[in-house]
Formats: sequence, structure tokens, C-alpha cells
Amino acid sequence: MNTSTANTARLLITCEDKPGIVQAVSSFLYHHGANITALDQYATEAQGGQYFMRVEFELEHLQNRKDTLLQTFESNVATRYQMQWHLTFVGDLKKVGILVSKVDHALYELLWRYARGLLPCEITHVVSNHETLRSAVEQFGLPFTVVKVTKDNKEEAEAEIQRIMDGNDLLVLARYMQILSEDFVSKWPMKVINIHHSFLPAFVGANPYKQAYEKGVKLIGATAHYVTADLDQGPIIEQDVERVGHEYNVDQLRELGQDVERNVLARAVRWHLEDRIIVDGTKTVVF
Amino acid sequence: MNTSTANTARLLITCEDKPGIVQAVSSFLYHHGANITALDQYATEAQGGQYFMRVEFELEHLQNRKDTLLQTFESNVATRYQMQWHLTFVGDLKKVGILVSKVDHALYELLWRYARGLLPCEITHVVSNHETLRSAVEQFGLPFTVVKVTKDNKEEAEAEIQRIMDGNDLLVLARYMQILSEDFVSKWPMKVINIHHSFLPAFVGANPYKQAYEKGVKLIGATAHYVTADLDQGPIIEQDVERVGHEYNVDQLRELGQDVERNVLARAVRWHLEDRIIVDGTKTVVF
Amino acid sequence: MNTSTANTARLLITCEDKPGIVQAVSSFLYHHGANITALDQYATEAQGGQYFMRVEFELEHLQNRKDTLLQTFESNVATRYQMQWHLTFVGDLKKVGILVSKVDHALYELLWRYARGLLPCEITHVVSNHETLRSAVEQFGLPFTVVKVTKDNKEEAEAEIQRIMDGNDLLVLARYMQILSEDFVSKWPMKVINIHHSFLPAFVGANPYKQAYEKGVKLIGATAHYVTADLDQGPIIEQDVERVGHEYNVDQLRELGQDVERNVLARAVRWHLEDRIIVDGTKTVVF
Amino acid sequence: MNTSTANTARLLITCEDKPGIVQAVSSFLYHHGANITALDQYATEAQGGQYFMRVEFELEHLQNRKDTLLQTFESNVATRYQMQWHLTFVGDLKKVGILVSKVDHALYELLWRYARGLLPCEITHVVSNHETLRSAVEQFGLPFTVVKVTKDNKEEAEAEIQRIMDGNDLLVLARYMQILSEDFVSKWPMKVINIHHSFLPAFVGANPYKQAYEKGVKLIGATAHYVTADLDQGPIIEQDVERVGHEYNVDQLRELGQDVERNVLARAVRWHLEDRIIVDGTKTVVF
Repeated sequence: MNTSTANTARLLITCEDKPGIVQAVSSFLYHHGANITALDQYATEAQGGQYFMRVEFELEHLQNRKDTLLQTFESNVATRYQMQWHLTFVGDLKKVGILVSKVDHALYELLWRYARGLLPCEITHVVSNHETLRSAVEQFGLPFTVVKVTKDNKEEAEAEIQRIMDGNDLLVLARYMQILSEDFVSKWPMKVINIHHSFLPAFVGANPYKQAYEKGVKLIGATAHYVTADLDQGPIIEQDVERVGHEYNVDQLRELGQDVERNVLARAVRWHLEDRIIVDGTKTVVF
Repeated sequence: MNTSTANTARLLITCEDKPGIVQAVSSFLYHHGANITALDQYATEAQGGQYFMRVEFELEHLQNRKDTLLQTFESNVATRYQMQWHLTFVGDLKKVGILVSKVDHALYELLWRYARGLLPCEITHVVSNHETLRSAVEQFGLPFTVVKVTKDNKEEAEAEIQRIMDGNDLLVLARYMQILSEDFVSKWPMKVINIHHSFLPAFVGANPYKQAYEKGVKLIGATAHYVTADLDQGPIIEQDVERVGHEYNVDQLRELGQDVERNVLARAVRWHLEDRIIVDGTKTVVF
Repeated sequence: MNTSTANTARLLITCEDKPGIVQAVSSFLYHHGANITALDQYATEAQGGQYFMRVEFELEHLQNRKDTLLQTFESNVATRYQMQWHLTFVGDLKKVGILVSKVDHALYELLWRYARGLLPCEITHVVSNHETLRSAVEQFGLPFTVVKVTKDNKEEAEAEIQRIMDGNDLLVLARYMQILSEDFVSKWPMKVINIHHSFLPAFVGANPYKQAYEKGVKLIGATAHYVTADLDQGPIIEQDVERVGHEYNVDQLRELGQDVERNVLARAVRWHLEDRIIVDGTKTVVF
Repeated sequence: MNTSTANTARLLITCEDKPGIVQAVSSFLYHHGANITALDQYATEAQGGQYFMRVEFELEHLQNRKDTLLQTFESNVATRYQMQWHLTFVGDLKKVGILVSKVDHALYELLWRYARGLLPCEITHVVSNHETLRSAVEQFGLPFTVVKVTKDNKEEAEAEIQRIMDGNDLLVLARYMQILSEDFVSKWPMKVINIHHSFLPAFVGANPYKQAYEKGVKLIGATAHYVTADLDQGPIIEQDVERVGHEYNVDQLRELGQDVERNVLARAVRWHLEDRIIVDGTKTVVF
């Protein structure tokens, strides 16, 4: 880790929209000697709208000053504006677990980007309900564990996954074909990212490429979203599409779609790792 | 009309997929002295699949040989393969009627492309249920008629529209905000093109930009489709999308979306006029 | 003009990158009672890098407080950081003149968007070196003047254009096929926007679609840029491309390219009108 | 190999445009009992224009009938129209050699698609002028050989590469940073595909991302092309671009650009393997 990374932090803020917030935050940082390197804000338009802010800053000797920053920001700024806020330190790599089934394209894209240093995180473990991708994972030097899921053992299986993944900051479902229970999801609020192989809200549920084929759409897409208890309904992080024609059969739609899926998922995961996403109810703000 | 246009025709064919169709069609044309200038084919993959073909050819003195062509193709080729087929002459401009309500972007795009010679047709009449766009239409030298539609006069209104539009080859709904009755639609099978302001099948029905806003999608789209009795469910001709972010309110989504709508509609209408579209059940083949 | 527009201003700042700028600007605005509605910043990375900022804010009774704002910002903030800065008032519509030759697509796009209220400006005059587009312009109720340009009268012609356009904030070359002299351009520094019909720096100079055809490129593009004394070399504001294939002849490339041109030009002009562009040497920062 | 693949062949034809070609080719195939599964044609527009055709067909017991087909097509059809033609058998996998230097993204994309069965070929060997990517290649079970290239040994190095690659149908330069000699290239006419990291013809030569950064373009691109003796000037097969902004430094342009490069290269290689490309002078026809 270079000095610049070790001294960089990010502040994510949500509060009611009021005058003076930029001034309050930037003054706080200035008086602590920080240099703002990025600043984004957004306010919803309704009366009493919500305000969202992301500030990235550098501060010398940040490692020794974390506690002070956290306490003084809370008492000097956050309380006044009743902020929900979150301070992250770029030097503290997020821990990421991956869940996968049999198809490999989304997993490979993550592992390949990880190996190249393009995903600022530590991938700790890959869990699958099948043996299929063991060698693919192990050749990247990562631990791989199979947790079989059946109708009868779902609770135990999820407990096992929870045990393995405990301590991670994020779970990525890289085409994991099991539905996580409401109970499991509630333990990872806005900490599970899924890739759905359609342009949601079109084609929820199973086999979206078959649905797309039968509907005769001229574009196919993919959607990365946070997982909530409502299947395929969590806040959308990123979407993209690719043009298709009548000559594509279901297999060809799937093959082309997988290129979209892997790019969309990789972008969503990266944005999460870079603290660019703030959840706004059922939607996301992506700075 | 130049000689080349006057001597150009297009043959659209649908039949069961069997060996020898290209040979039969191209031999027929060759023996009549025609020169094939474009040829596209597509076959669905299932056993006993459907076969679709579009051939464009030039033939000297075509104007005098239309009847001969039509008769001999039917007896010599079409019967053998039980083809549904359709021969169009590029020199015979298609007649097009437009239906519109108050918003002007889709209408303007069509009129502007028409004025520049980019839509090979004759626009015969624009009908609206409002006065709003009269001057926009009349400045292009086109007739404009208002046919008011209320709950009580829907039948009479549609009869009036039918009377005005009778004899056209195509009706274009350029954001016409009235639902046409099943009875009316049945008189114009695959001859009415609508632009829907969403990426169907997402956001059917009213106010799709509001639906898109509330869902928090990251792309908005538009869909041009043939109108059938099922609202927003006819065969899709063309779709496109544009990237948006959390910062777009409903008005901004609508404004950006209108740029997508007008381009998608213009492409669909042009493809129809160029005989590029064959309907395949609930879907389209676009050559 | 609604109250919100009348009370909205934008501050564009360029200076050397130093800590405290956000704090200084936001404190200034806060103490004047302004509410920041948008804030973007960017710093180049080199040592002693440049810093760029755009702030949009609302301030009650702005109309009466312009002078005070201008003076106190200069003395209290700008001087300290040696800022180049620019304060614009959204209520003061920018005046825009358009120069055009014979082809109409870029002009129409601007006029149509203007008529729909999508270009926040006042178009004052359209000047052309040909009569061709007179009725197109006059039907929008705008003055149209022909200034013929020949080899021999270039100086007089430009003097005439200068006289007509004097007092405008921006000139838009909507496919104006005359090269403006260095002398003329120097009077309108970063105040003339041109649309070039290629993806610069590919295909500078004449007939870029023919160049593109001969090169066999698979995408064609358009570039909107500020005009400087170097032909086709001014700071690029916006670019876009469209996919083409081997089957496109030069005319078809041109036709498709014109759709790209008009969209790219419209975006660039709008961004200029919304004070989103800061010139950074030979490049642009677009917020 | 399934029966369908084993019985599928493709015919690529170039000749002067004349009436009757489709008829002649389709009759030939019909009388041999073949079923045409795809047919594309294109004719340049000039008088005495060139005609290009790609036909894919299935024929039972193709393996035993290759010689007959080749001979009878030459004598019965090709001679009459003075065709340049090429018959390929889908069952005969093309042999592909890859040349690479140190950066891995383009190589990985090819190997990953190959491993998934998405590149219909046999990759025979990877040659590099560096050791860097040995394990990346060997984990896919492919032979990897380092051939060092210096100013003094270029001739010997190319002879060594020629010896290793002899017998391949295609060489892919997956970011191979050595310029191949005119002599070497002449041995592989339209059989070497290179990926150039810019939207050609913009930014030929070294370090295109730096050039793009300095120019301030708003889109960056990549170009796959056949290699000829003219550096970066061979026939373009495929291009694509991605949107960037002022905030991208050279490294970020490169990182994003690599995603474009790998997709563009993978498409170009696949199209070559599927016999979709016919070279037309300095350009390509891609069916």
C-alpha cells in the first residue's frame, strides 16, 4: 500500500437536504488538514428532500487519526444535520466472498480483474453448491468450498455459508442459482450483490433468455442489484444491454448475454468497493 | 423517380424450411432477366422450421411486366413450396397516415425525415385528437384533421379515422394517446406501427417514465411495435435505450427518452417502407 | 422566468490546486445565504496541478445582489487562490447566433430543440452564405440574413457577420462551410462551437465521409469543438459514433452521420449554455 | 464433432458483379443435394463492381465428397464467372498461433473463450518475447515458447517464429509489441490479425492512450485489423469505442481501453474462424 492510499478516506452521507452541508463538511475537513480529492452530491427534488454526498480526501498520518476523525465528525457535524454517515479508509481493503454455481463467466471476470489489481479488495473465499469450478478458483490461489443445497438442508447449508463468510464486507452472487432465505439476506443488508441475466424489471424469475427469445426483444441486458428479501427486486446498481436480432437462438442470446453480465457485475462490485453507492430506499445513488 | 427505382422490386417470402428455395427463387428471377441486388434469408431452427426470405431485384421494363411476374411466380414457385409471399414495387410509393395527440417530437422526426427524402413514402394525412399540432403539420404542406375522441363517441371517431385513412398502406401512431379498438386494429393487420415509451416488456401501460423513475433503472428505452388487439404486446420491430443516472427526475427521463423514441420510430417506419420486416407469429424478422 | 431560475447562479473556477478551495467557496456562499444545488470539481494530477470547479446555487433576491456577490467573491476568495472565475446568472439568457450553409439537419435540430424550450438561450439571428434555408429559419420566427462569401470579399463578409452577430454570447457553426479567419476567431475566444463530421482527430479536412469510406472504418462519428485558429483542432467538447458496415456507400455514411452530428452538436451547445464546460488548454473539462 | 458440424461447409466468393451468380451457385448446391443454411452477398456500386458472397450449407457425407465438390465447382461455376473462391469445411478446425508480449488481457480473453468452446479452432502455440505470461498460458494446457527479439537477432527470431508457427491457418497478435518484417508478413497474407489500441486511423503508432489523453478525446477505441507491410494500415475488421471524460488519466484510459481491445479482438478472431471476412482491397467485407 502506498502512502497516498493509506492516507485516503471516503465519507458517505445521507441526510435531509438543508443549506450549509457542503460548507459544514468541507470546513470540518479543512480544519483537520485534509485535502478533498473528490466530491459528489445529489439532492432529491421533493420538499424536505434527501441529500446524498460522497467526499474523498487525503489526510497525513490518517492511520493514527481515525478515531479522532470519527468522534469529532459525529459530534461536530453529523449530529447537527442528523446524518446517516459512513467513513471508510481506502487502506482497509474490503473482504469479499463469492457464491457461484456452475457457470463460470461472471466468476472468471471477477477473479481475472482481481488478479490484475483492478478490484481493490481481498477475495477471501469462493463457495459453490457444485464441484464444477474448483480448479478454476484454486488456480488463482483462493479457497473453494462446496456447500451442497437441497430442499431438506437449506437451513443448515445457509448456516454453513454464514460461518464461512462471516467477517466479509460483501458477498457477490456470481450466478449463484440458489435463492437465499429472507433470514440470511437480513444478515447482509445491502451487502449482497447479485447479477440477474435480464434488463430488470423485464423478465424476472427463471430462464430470462428463453423469455427474451419468446418475446422477440431487440436488445438483451443484465442487471446488477443488491439482494433483498424480494427476489429480483432489490435496488438496481448497474444495467447494460447488447443489440440482438431475430437470428439469435436461446443459446446465442445466453452467450452474448454472458458478456454483458460479466461487465455489469464487475462494474457494480468495483463501485461498491470504491464506496460509490448509497442506497436511497428501493433505488441507488451511484457517484 | 429514376429508372433504377422504377425497375426495382422486392419479394418477401415465408414458408416451411426445405432445401432448394434459394435455387428456385433465384432461377425464377434469372430466367426473367432480373438482377438480384440484395438477398437475405433466415430459418428458425426447430424441425419443420419456418423459412423467411427477402430478395430485392432489378428488372428492365418492370412496369409492364408486373402481372406476368405475379402470375408466373405463383404458379411456378410459390405453389410448390406453399409460400406466403408478397411482391412490392419500389416505384409504387407506400401511402402513410399519421395519428398523433399533443406531443410533437415523434411527429416532427417523421415529417423532417420525410421532407428530406429519407422516408420513401407519401404521407397522406395527419389526424389528431387535438388542435395542438396543426401548424406544425401544415407548414410541411400536409393535411391535418382533428377527430375528437371521447368516451361516448369512440365508435364514431374511429369510423371517421377509418374514412380518412382508408387506402393507406400504413398507419403510424406517433404518440397517439388513444387506444384503438380491437375492431379498428383488425382492419389494419400488421399495418399500424406504434412507439411505446419504454423498453418493453418493462413498463407496459401508462406513464412508463414515472414507472422507470420509481424503479430506479439505469437505462431508459423505447419500443416500436406493430399494434395488435393486445395493448403494448404486438410484435416488436425495434428498440433502443439510453443511459441515465439517479440524478434524472421524471421530466428529464421523458426529455431524454423522447430522443430515443423518435429515432426508434423513424427506423421502424423506414424498415417497414423498405419491406424489411416479416412478421413471425408474435415476433418480427427484420432483414 | 420562474423564481427559482431567476435566483440561480453558477460559478466556474480555475486555479492552482490547493487545499481549502471547496471550504472557501462553500463558506462564502453559505455566509451569503446561498444554497448549493450542484457542485463538481476536478484536479489534474501533476504536481502543482490545475483545479476546476463548477458550483450552482440558489440565492433569494439574486437580481439585486449580483454586484455585491461579484465584488465580495473577488476580494474575499478569488484573490487568495488567484482564481480565474466566472459568475453567470441563469436568469440572464445567453444570446446565440447561428451560421449555416446549405445542409439543414444540424440547424433544424437546434431550432426544434429551441422551439421546445430545450435550449436555454435566445437565438438572435441565423446567417448563411446561401438562400437555401431561409424559409426553414423564418418559419421559426427568427431573422435570417445571407452574407455571401467569395474569395475576394472574405474580409468584408466577416465584417458584416461581426456586425450582425455583435453582442451574442455564442456562435454556433451548424455545418457552416466557410473557414473563419484567425482574426475573426480571435474576437470570439471559446465562443464559437463547430460540428465536424468525423471522429476527430481522424479525418480532418474536407469530405470526411469519403475518407471514412475509403478507409473502411466500422464506426463513423462526429465531433463538436470550440473553434480556434487551427482548423479542426480546437478543444473537443463532445463526440459520438455510430456503427456502420461494408455495405454503406458514401451517401449512406453521410445520412447516418448526420444523425450523429445533430445530436452531438445539440449536446455541446446545451452544455455550453448550462455553463458546464471549462477550457483546459487544448482540452475541455465538462461537468 | 457432431454430424451437423461435420457436414457443414462455407463458400466464399469474390468476382465481378454480373446477373445470375446467386442462381448459378444455388443451383450447383441444390443439384449436389446441399441445403443452404446461410447466404450473404454484397456488391460494390461502381460500374463493373465487385461481388462478394458467403454461403453456408449442409451436405450429407460431406467428408467423402470434398474433392468432388471442389473440382465440379471450379469447372461448372467458378470458371464461368472468373471467381476467386474458397471452400472451407467447418469440421476441419483452423489452427491458430498466438503472439504476445507482456500484457495479458487480450491473451486471457482468447484463452478463456477458447476454453469455453467459443472460438472454433485449435490453438496450437503461444509465442512471446518475454517469460511473463508462461504460467497464464500453461494453465490452459497450451505450449508456450519464448523467442527473444533484439535489434541484432530480428531475422533469426522471425525464422524461429516461422518454424514454430508453420502450418497454422491464422496468427493472432494479442498485443505483441514487436513489428513484424515485411518479409514475415508476406508469408501470412490476410492471415495475421492485430489489435491496435486506438480507433484507427486516429493515433497510429506508439502509445495511443497517451495521444488520446493529450488530444482530450471523449471516446477511446480499439481496432482489429489484418496485418500488412504498412504498420497499422491493414484492412480493418472491427472497431469499438467507450465513452471517457476529462477525469481519466492515461492509466485509466488504458485500463478501460483494454476492455474494448479484448472484446474487439475476440470478435475479429471469431469472425475470421467462421469465414465471415472477405478482404476487398484495403477494406473488409464482414458477413
